[in-house]
Amino acid sequence: MSAMAAPVALIQGASRGLGLEFCKHILKNKSLAAVVATCRTPDGAAELRGLAGQHRGRLTVLKLDVNLEEDIREAAARVKENFGRVDLLVNSAAMLHPTGKGETSLRDVSAQGIISTLTTNTVGPLVMAKYFSPLLQKGGGAFGLQPSEKAKHHSGVIVNITAKVGSIGDNGLGGWYSYRMSKAALNMATRNLSIELGRSQPKVVCVSLHPGTVNTDLSRPYHRNVPNDKLFSAEHSVNCLMGIINSLSIEKTGKAYSWDGTELPW
Amino acid sequence: MSAMAAPVALIQGASRGLGLEFCKHILKNKSLAAVVATCRTPDGAAELRGLAGQHRGRLTVLKLDVNLEEDIREAAARVKENFGRVDLLVNSAAMLHPTGKGETSLRDVSAQGIISTLTTNTVGPLVMAKYFSPLLQKGGGAFGLQPSEKAKHHSGVIVNITAKVGSIGDNGLGGWYSYRMSKAALNMATRNLSIELGRSQPKVVCVSLHPGTVNTDLSRPYHRNVPNDKLFSAEHSVNCLMGIINSLSIEKTGKAYSWDGTELPW
Repeated sequence: MSAMAAPVALIQGASRGLGLEFCKHILKNKSLAAVVATCRTPDGAAELRGLAGQHRGRLTVLKLDVNLEEDIREAAARVKENFGRVDLLVNSAAMLHPTGKGETSLRDVSAQGIISTLTTNTVGPLVMAKYFSPLLQKGGGAFGLQPSEKAKHHSGVIVNITAKVGSIGDNGLGGWYSYRMSKAALNMATRNLSIELGRSQPKVVCVSLHPGTVNTDLSRPYHRNVPNDKLFSAEHSVNCLMGIINSLSIEKTGKAYSWDGTELPW
Repeated sequence: MSAMAAPVALIQGASRGLGLEFCKHILKNKSLAAVVATCRTPDGAAELRGLAGQHRGRLTVLKLDVNLEEDIREAAARVKENFGRVDLLVNSAAMLHPTGKGETSLRDVSAQGIISTLTTNTVGPLVMAKYFSPLLQKGGGAFGLQPSEKAKHHSGVIVNITAKVGSIGDNGLGGWYSYRMSKAALNMATRNLSIELGRSQPKVVCVSLHPGTVNTDLSRPYHRNVPNDKLFSAEHSVNCLMGIINSLSIEKTGKAYSWDGTELPW
């Protein structure tokens, strides 16, 4: 860590929805931070490219398909070369199901549908952690709170965007097999990462965060079932989530938190 | 359900280890039951074929690769034609990792390794449930306890073999990314299945069961770390698990139990 270097936030899945909003929020509220935004097809990400135009030198857009380990490895090499570190990694890309609709019953379940969902929502974030954790261990700890005790400082933070429906204990309704299973497995990845990266020195904090039900493409088919005051804008949700991220320390690692800061059951 | 029809138990992943032992146990202790044993390559499953020779007419061996949805669909059609029902489905096939060793750290993680493990351990059991649940709904409820209240009777039981290391809340050591994630996601599948199949009439019970650390090929590389009295024979483990299965009712559905009957945290 160099005292001179600017903090670096890497937002994976940044072309729209929560990911795009994380970029906007950090560019606006963390005036020193550089943002690396990744998405599958930068050429098609008009809003993200517009944002890059407004924030020249602060926002870098990288092509990264989270389903391709090679893409992730190459992006990490680029970030290492250009920045040498990462302070915050947000894994945001996710799908409900390849068809755009969660399974309402077993009839809708297919092996290929589950595997695609798991690959994007679960495998992708873990492989991101594999290639970016060496850079997070070189971070300056710019996100979260550092306790007074030096041995408990963290250099970086990994945020996996989970969902309340990924809580096994909270599941009273069923359905959405692929999505629920992908988020339960992602929560296990969070837990495992918190253990491995909490043992190392410097430490990296890892949590799962539930954004609430957010007005994004992922949840759009279901909005009519959500009361108005429970349907968040991406801006509101990211405001809440950044509040949690800014309060994270190694004491809070390895857990799942909701947008309001309450802990979610596994 | 016909009062004349014999109970049918389907054991998936029956060529060795726990699956083979489930077949032996049921053939020995449930003298009326027919057993359908599935495995990837019946030609190579010498012990299973020997067992079929000893129990002519009671043990049917079917080829089924749990990674192939088409295989599962065809096996279900065969079982429907020959038996018309299933009383118990045990999803037993699992791998620790394609390399045979669980990941000790992120360095060992690969997208392909996780996807293979998830496909066999998680997707397979759920797709089994998809194709066999109609047959389980035609079961005679021969496994488990039927409460006096008729509306609470169950026609069939699905057992997903999980593992204590698949408990997110219990995870204090980390490592084994793929295996842990696959079992956490499987536990979510169990929970979802219990809800969907507990709503229907007739009801199907679905639980996850942890067999303990069993002397099988899956755990063999790790036996030297296990105290002798904690390393179970497959026979002992299946004895314990069948004790739990015989006590199941719809009141106990949707949970994960250890070999000793205690409930596991998610």
